Amino acid sequence: MNLTAKDIIQDLELVRTKSPLVHNITNYVVMNSTANALLAIGASPVMAHAMDEVEDMVAIASALVINIGTLSETWVAAMGKAAAAAGRRNIPIVYDPVGVGATPYRTRVFRRLIETAWPTVIRGNASEIIASAGDFSATKGVDSAAAAESALASAQWLSGQHDCVVCVSGETDYVVDHDAIVMVRNGHPLMPRVTGLGCTATALCGAFAAVQPDPFRATVSAMAVMGIAGEIAAERSAGPGSMQVNFLDALFQLTDKEIGKRLKIS
Amino acid sequence: MNLTAKDIIQDLELVRTKSPLVHNITNYVVMNSTANALLAIGASPVMAHAMDEVEDMVAIASALVINIGTLSETWVAAMGKAAAAAGRRNIPIVYDPVGVGATPYRTRVFRRLIETAWPTVIRGNASEIIASAGDFSATKGVDSAAAAESALASAQWLSGQHDCVVCVSGETDYVVDHDAIVMVRNGHPLMPRVTGLGCTATALCGAFAAVQPDPFRATVSAMAVMGIAGEIAAERSAGPGSMQVNFLDALFQLTDKEIGKRLKIS
Amino acid sequence: MNLTAKDIIQDLELVRTKSPLVHNITNYVVMNSTANALLAIGASPVMAHAMDEVEDMVAIASALVINIGTLSETWVAAMGKAAAAAGRRNIPIVYDPVGVGATPYRTRVFRRLIETAWPTVIRGNASEIIASAGDFSATKGVDSAAAAESALASAQWLSGQHDCVVCVSGETDYVVDHDAIVMVRNGHPLMPRVTGLGCTATALCGAFAAVQPDPFRATVSAMAVMGIAGEIAAERSAGPGSMQVNFLDALFQLTDKEIGKRLKIS
Repeated sequence: MNLTAKDIIQDLELVRTKSPLVHNITNYVVMNSTANALLAIGASPVMAHAMDEVEDMVAIASALVINIGTLSETWVAAMGKAAAAAGRRNIPIVYDPVGVGATPYRTRVFRRLIETAWPTVIRGNASEIIASAGDFSATKGVDSAAAAESALASAQWLSGQHDCVVCVSGETDYVVDHDAIVMVRNGHPLMPRVTGLGCTATALCGAFAAVQPDPFRATVSAMAVMGIAGEIAAERSAGPGSMQVNFLDALFQLTDKEIGKRLKIS
Repeated sequence: MNLTAKDIIQDLELVRTKSPLVHNITNYVVMNSTANALLAIGASPVMAHAMDEVEDMVAIASALVINIGTLSETWVAAMGKAAAAAGRRNIPIVYDPVGVGATPYRTRVFRRLIETAWPTVIRGNASEIIASAGDFSATKGVDSAAAAESALASAQWLSGQHDCVVCVSGETDYVVDHDAIVMVRNGHPLMPRVTGLGCTATALCGAFAAVQPDPFRATVSAMAVMGIAGEIAAERSAGPGSMQVNFLDALFQLTDKEIGKRLKIS
Repeated sequence: MNLTAKDIIQDLELVRTKSPLVHNITNYVVMNSTANALLAIGASPVMAHAMDEVEDMVAIASALVINIGTLSETWVAAMGKAAAAAGRRNIPIVYDPVGVGATPYRTRVFRRLIETAWPTVIRGNASEIIASAGDFSATKGVDSAAAAESALASAQWLSGQHDCVVCVSGETDYVVDHDAIVMVRNGHPLMPRVTGLGCTATALCGAFAAVQPDPFRATVSAMAVMGIAGEIAAERSAGPGSMQVNFLDALFQLTDKEIGKRLKIS
């Protein structure tokens, strides 16, 4: 597939005009920033994790995003229930394996979840993707210790095993679907200094997959939009505080022209 | 009642000088932004949801704010316990029916809560107020699909049924107490692009009701202050990121003069 | 001990070069801002509270920070388990007794926790430190009603009783270790208008204690860095919204020169 700026622009336009409802079951740290990023890009976020309502919320949502950043027993149960419902409804399920590999519990929970309801997209950093694929790397917390390219083989294995798109994010983002690979080279070193921008990327994958039926293209679009907004924001920022603010403004204001000018995919 | 800028200014002064302790049991998405808004306006926020302490926290608070944005079984139980304690102490209880109508669970929980301890104020968007009043509208997530005026009949019914103030927020905010209606026309289209500004409005209703014994007037004051601070902030903002920041600054700096100049109530 | 700017600069350099993993079990209100502050200063934050993983997370962390701002039964259990594991591993444990004294439950939970695993550092405001030491003062929510110096005797008693460093923060911060006292006079009145900057101070104590083996010095360094970054941020801020943003930028950019120029310890 040969994606161009025109495709990304079209997908962004779809998000903005359709304003898809994205159901997030995510971690406490990023709930506010994720909701704000989804609103800024034009989507409609909802957070709900009660066992008694996750199925009803999935029933009106256009995508489900599951992020395991701050787990507990009841949340894991709700994630499983929501994922199963999303699988039955056949809406996209996007997973973020935050910290997989850091503790055996996370790794176990994540693997069980993706067996419950097969992923449409998995987005993580190199350590998380390697650990998700079963190569137990030494993960240092929830940050990526390894460069993204080191996880490429794991990503391909995971993509084949679960018939899904896998995105390894880092300085270069690799979007993998079986044998297909697209590299997104947009972004800025200040981005990992803001907590939860990886989680935001995952949420945007959900927003794009909700409106773009090809999940590979949707993931490339989401990662490109993330990276480009990150570049624009970083140019105006004195540090991670202003970066977080400017990133939301940049998502909100993002123009076709900026996408055309800055896009670096291959 | 014929409220003027002078009344709003007086109420704001009361909040700033008395710095009432407002006990919030609210959703994960907005806890930080709600606490910051309460601090910025001069109130003193506390968040507490443990079954073992909600009654003791209510006992030292001047108002209780209950927001059902991210529910679970134990939180619902704590909300009920806190609400009952607030009812016994006769301090104002302000409810935010986030997403009522989106799932049967939310609707059921909310109705049971307001039977447990009667509301002083209910603030929601049109969809939520309509659903709270039992007219099951098609609610799209937690955003308002309908214009505020469409919920006026529901608000009046709810106000009569529960003997409380009901505020339907939207481009125009309607504050209803039985047959009385005040319309607040302050605000800015950028406000709904920031997550949780509705929840912030509810928290400010709590702060104002804590110091102003007339809950109708307190609600009008809170909504006017929200709207005016939103206008000031939007004029300085490039998007929803800077809007969130500038809104807190505007609340903090809000002058009598700005209120006098900008207030649009009728 | 006669600490100078050189010591603070050295400790900050250690945080930045070692980037210690700091495991936080903290409250919902501040999770995002705490994680961002730790990233901004150069540390590596992780939040995890599942009973099934806290021990494994402690096993890879360099410090544990426990903040009781929003408690519930399962969180208290996880805090106890994590604290015990940190005690066995002999990594620093930093406690934040948010709201101790406001409800009997918080006071009881906090006292039990510090018996489970002895603190390396306790940081709170005057009311919290007084209540932690058993003098039941009238605490108004989670804000400090009393001036820091009024808690000095309680801090000394607590330090002796638990053989730990105690920091009472306020306009002047008092860092106490048995008979030793250092006063940090940096900071700005806008800081308490931003929610959770006290919690951020506690998290920074964790980051510094993770790399600086003397916990007294680590605490002084953390409080000095907090105060200086707060001063720099306040000078650029129009209110608490921009303050929160500028504070993260100031932490990120903090130079040796600024520390040398501004430090006020005695």
